[in-house]
Amino acid sequence: MNDPASKYFKCTDRERAIFEAGIKLGAIYHQYTGIPVNESNIEYIQKAIESATMLQPFVENVKVKINLNAENDTKFNYKSLNGTMLEVDLTVNYNGSTARAKMKYLRDLNYPLMYLEE
Amino acid sequence: MNDPASKYFKCTDRERAIFEAGIKLGAIYHQYTGIPVNESNIEYIQKAIESATMLQPFVENVKVKINLNAENDTKFNYKSLNGTMLEVDLTVNYNGSTARAKMKYLRDLNYPLMYLEE
Amino acid sequence: MNDPASKYFKCTDRERAIFEAGIKLGAIYHQYTGIPVNESNIEYIQKAIESATMLQPFVENVKVKINLNAENDTKFNYKSLNGTMLEVDLTVNYNGSTARAKMKYLRDLNYPLMYLEE
Amino acid sequence: MNDPASKYFKCTDRERAIFEAGIKLGAIYHQYTGIPVNESNIEYIQKAIESATMLQPFVENVKVKINLNAENDTKFNYKSLNGTMLEVDLTVNYNGSTARAKMKYLRDLNYPLMYLEE
Repeated sequence: MNDPASKYFKCTDRERAIFEAGIKLGAIYHQYTGIPVNESNIEYIQKAIESATMLQPFVENVKVKINLNAENDTKFNYKSLNGTMLEVDLTVNYNGSTARAKMKYLRDLNYPLMYLEE
Repeated sequence: MNDPASKYFKCTDRERAIFEAGIKLGAIYHQYTGIPVNESNIEYIQKAIESATMLQPFVENVKVKINLNAENDTKFNYKSLNGTMLEVDLTVNYNGSTARAKMKYLRDLNYPLMYLEE
Repeated sequence: MNDPASKYFKCTDRERAIFEAGIKLGAIYHQYTGIPVNESNIEYIQKAIESATMLQPFVENVKVKINLNAENDTKFNYKSLNGTMLEVDLTVNYNGSTARAKMKYLRDLNYPLMYLEE
Repeated sequence: MNDPASKYFKCTDRERAIFEAGIKLGAIYHQYTGIPVNESNIEYIQKAIESATMLQPFVENVKVKINLNAENDTKFNYKSLNGTMLEVDLTVNYNGSTARAKMKYLRDLNYPLMYLEE
């Protein structure tokens, strides 16, 4: 593992993996919401988010699913991607320690929650 | 042509095409800059931007090119997409009137200019 | 008026004003949606959007209003700014020719429309 | 402390604080970069970022500083906010456990690093 920034951190490997997972989910929500999406380009957008997230430090795996049904229709034939439509499953591995984090809209909270599953 | 919003506009068809072209370029700059990009995902990002822009009203054609060389290397193996890296060629057609607009980094201005070519 | 980019444009002054107005509205939608907002910071966000838009070329005036009531409550005490909450009134002046543009959520379209009022 | 989402997490309080800190920094970078900024509105933008971040769950304190000198001048009188210009000092408190995180451009990495200071 190559980490040119390790000297700046005061934490365990597990904590670092968790921190990096938080960064990636915060980034996904605030970078991609607003993109026009419908059935015709949903796979391109999912693939773009996944491929860009994979470039960020220590991401081992990421799966993105956009739920088009989560939003009401407009008079135009697309929707603006928002947090309630996003489902993300992310694994970060820092020096062998892993964190598995998710983003998912939860009806009981009426909120797209980012949480640590493992 | 179907335009459920036509009653709200006070302008000619050509002016409408120009207005819509401006919206799309402003949107591209402010929506997609910040995305992590390198050689491995550049085509996915270009395709995502093109496919999402095509969904927006009255877009006839759009071509997006990302210039990775425009920015210095970091210690990590990707760059954050910014305006100087973006080259966009967009045609909007409103009721037969067209506007052709571009976004391109221009060295003399040190600025990614959005302009009307036709 | 100082326009270091004028040589790149093929259009009238009025068309240029309209193009610039479109850019600014597209920018506002895609730059600021996603920001956490409630009663406590709504004025800071409105002021930030207005002050940043005023810096962009040829903006004569801009007024931004965020409608918090437009969205359902979550279990947390804020909302994520989205297009249905944004009301913008913008005037662009290019060399004496003006364009007045608005963004506003319209119930009949279920869409935050950007349109040219004058 | 009120946390309607606690049941979804499998981690310690310290780990939760770290995860939330990562989310906020990832959000700041990807939400606000792209905003037009110069001396005239820098305080409005800093205040907007701080006030919006304070609304997010478990943020105890946040200070944002924008370094205008970090970027070259353009022919226009503003710059587009980017990661190299952002300096953030953030404290998250989850149930008494804290995480202190920063974002800062580091010359040796040529990268705006997000790191855990405590």
